[in-house]
Amino acid sequence: MDKGIIYLDHAATTYVKPEVFEAMKPWFTEYYGNPSAIYSLGRQSKKAIEEARAQIAYCLGAHPTEIFFTGSGTEADNWAIKGTALANQKKGKHVITTVIEHHAVLEAFDFLRKEEGFEVTYLPVNENGLVNPEDLKKAIRPDTTLVSIMYANNEIGTIQPIHELASIAREKGVVFHTDSVQAIGNIAVNVKELDVDLLSLSAHKFYGPKGVGALYVRKGIKMESFIHGGAQERKRRAGTENVPGVIGMAAALKLAYDNLEDYNNHLGKLSSRFIEKVLERIPYVHLNGDREQRLPGNVNFSFRFVEGESLLLMLDMKGIQASSGSACTSGSLDPSHVLLAIGLSHEIAHGSLRITFGEKNTEEEVDYLVDTLEEIVEKLRKMSPLYEEFVKNH
Amino acid sequence: MDKGIIYLDHAATTYVKPEVFEAMKPWFTEYYGNPSAIYSLGRQSKKAIEEARAQIAYCLGAHPTEIFFTGSGTEADNWAIKGTALANQKKGKHVITTVIEHHAVLEAFDFLRKEEGFEVTYLPVNENGLVNPEDLKKAIRPDTTLVSIMYANNEIGTIQPIHELASIAREKGVVFHTDSVQAIGNIAVNVKELDVDLLSLSAHKFYGPKGVGALYVRKGIKMESFIHGGAQERKRRAGTENVPGVIGMAAALKLAYDNLEDYNNHLGKLSSRFIEKVLERIPYVHLNGDREQRLPGNVNFSFRFVEGESLLLMLDMKGIQASSGSACTSGSLDPSHVLLAIGLSHEIAHGSLRITFGEKNTEEEVDYLVDTLEEIVEKLRKMSPLYEEFVKNH
Repeated sequence: MDKGIIYLDHAATTYVKPEVFEAMKPWFTEYYGNPSAIYSLGRQSKKAIEEARAQIAYCLGAHPTEIFFTGSGTEADNWAIKGTALANQKKGKHVITTVIEHHAVLEAFDFLRKEEGFEVTYLPVNENGLVNPEDLKKAIRPDTTLVSIMYANNEIGTIQPIHELASIAREKGVVFHTDSVQAIGNIAVNVKELDVDLLSLSAHKFYGPKGVGALYVRKGIKMESFIHGGAQERKRRAGTENVPGVIGMAAALKLAYDNLEDYNNHLGKLSSRFIEKVLERIPYVHLNGDREQRLPGNVNFSFRFVEGESLLLMLDMKGIQASSGSACTSGSLDPSHVLLAIGLSHEIAHGSLRITFGEKNTEEEVDYLVDTLEEIVEKLRKMSPLYEEFVKNH
Repeated sequence: MDKGIIYLDHAATTYVKPEVFEAMKPWFTEYYGNPSAIYSLGRQSKKAIEEARAQIAYCLGAHPTEIFFTGSGTEADNWAIKGTALANQKKGKHVITTVIEHHAVLEAFDFLRKEEGFEVTYLPVNENGLVNPEDLKKAIRPDTTLVSIMYANNEIGTIQPIHELASIAREKGVVFHTDSVQAIGNIAVNVKELDVDLLSLSAHKFYGPKGVGALYVRKGIKMESFIHGGAQERKRRAGTENVPGVIGMAAALKLAYDNLEDYNNHLGKLSSRFIEKVLERIPYVHLNGDREQRLPGNVNFSFRFVEGESLLLMLDMKGIQASSGSACTSGSLDPSHVLLAIGLSHEIAHGSLRITFGEKNTEEEVDYLVDTLEEIVEKLRKMSPLYEEFVKNH
């Protein structure tokens, strides 16, 4: 709190941890060889990225040849969805996803629908944001080729029963992808235990660098390349490898897996304290997402009679960096598609606040947040004609 | 030469300059906000990437709204080619490129041809690797929608008459893209003077970081998005921005443009010295590419009776890091498509060596290179039955 900034938006992005940065550093200026080159400086880079690949594979329970580096989680999602749907279109052009996916997934399905003539089924979620496995069972048809369901939601933190969902797809011989950008680093993710075919991740969500992600592709999965060109990534993803980025991603993932339990406990304590105090002190507030099946560091509240953007800007003036939901759509004035999908009205969805805690946050910061929030919410409600009306009638 | 390594493969990749690294550094660990976030830490990142965009636009003679960040030069090429061809396919499905493009371009055209039913015309080049503008004129048809011709070749360094070629396309109302990944940072590139519609670049070719590139898209050009998702890059390229990468790319480009004349002079001197000494001292050698219209730091020789890979490995043992051509295809045993296109036989193409000089190379290194090369070529030829045969008959 000394610096005057309390960062509470770790789902949007995280800083690069000092240890991760140290691991990356020499690969910018000193060991800079192109991994495709056959001389020693090139082989050194090649060895380093293969070690990074093995490290990532080990954390995820995959084989190194099943890990492919990308330029972002969004690219991994695009590749997974378009690559498998297009490669299997002779088998069928029906694909399934959910109404609460990240835009990287939803827009990839939109592309398939609008440009490639696919039919998309969007599974609903319950009031806590959970997909019902029965709905998936019913939605799968003989011409279904792909199911994509996110592991943990970026706005409300709800964790889906991925193993159960993936098993349903597996039984019917349908490829299963999970966007685990928000889950990785927060919960233990193991592709073999989950039994998924494709899984996306993004380094900057777990204290790694921006501009690098990965896609797990189970051996034998039929998919087209997305970025065409050179022979990198076993000819499946072209472009000179982001050597420092890949090394940073592996270092960050290792740290995350090594410290997962402590990290979860820390975040869980902060979240519980925050939830408890808010529900105790601020009226007309609704906690979004599932109480149990949720990311430990995610808290999403809707405050009635409050306009979300004003709330965020006033929090910012007090040094608190928080979000109303997805950073990737913050240019938009539309209410969150996730909050509408769990049944919130437009008005209530507009008054939402997403807090996502990280390793450095403290209980003191939570208390300061609650105090500040109470004050701002009260101030904003006093300015709201709807609130005035409401109070008059109650 | 102290470290025992002489790096002569700057076309494959470059190290990040210390000044560039310093510019990037705080954005990993200190100023890490997501540029899409509305709080101060986010706005700070947004401001920084917009300054980087303005800097890049200024160097290239573009407007900032015409610059889009990508994860690599390869992604920029893929997007430019697939994005415009698909967006304009109602107008026609004929597209034009050349036989000597980088694989990032050739494979994107392959995708259009094989997966999307496009017809592709491949323009030939002369023995120096130059495209004849008359050939382009003749190739354009009423259903042609896109021409893509690289600015400078990555293997033989030949610089195409881009302004003349782009003008031909402009006259016929056809979109013109140039892959300028090898040109940028080596020669002055100005999109307005060239009159091109689309231009790709990659930071790690001009002492910037790996994993970041850009695409110039002239205002008004109709193209589809390639990576779908969030609203970044004015809704045209989704994914959280690689903030340090983008800042590094802008810093590297500014340095390159500020020092272009000195850099060119330096590289030109080294190249001339190298060419002169090799032609003087090593027999049965052929200089590939155009003597005048070439990148100042590129020298590509074919040595008869020498197997390229052995040459490279023996150079490597002497600390010399050089390439036989494109790093991106070094996994392949096929001879270079560029060398075959300029008329070399398979046998001669196999004995090629690409030297690409950089800022730190010295005349002493050139002399050491020539001495080493002379020795190795002689040794390899002595082991060649073809050479033995040849000497007997001459």
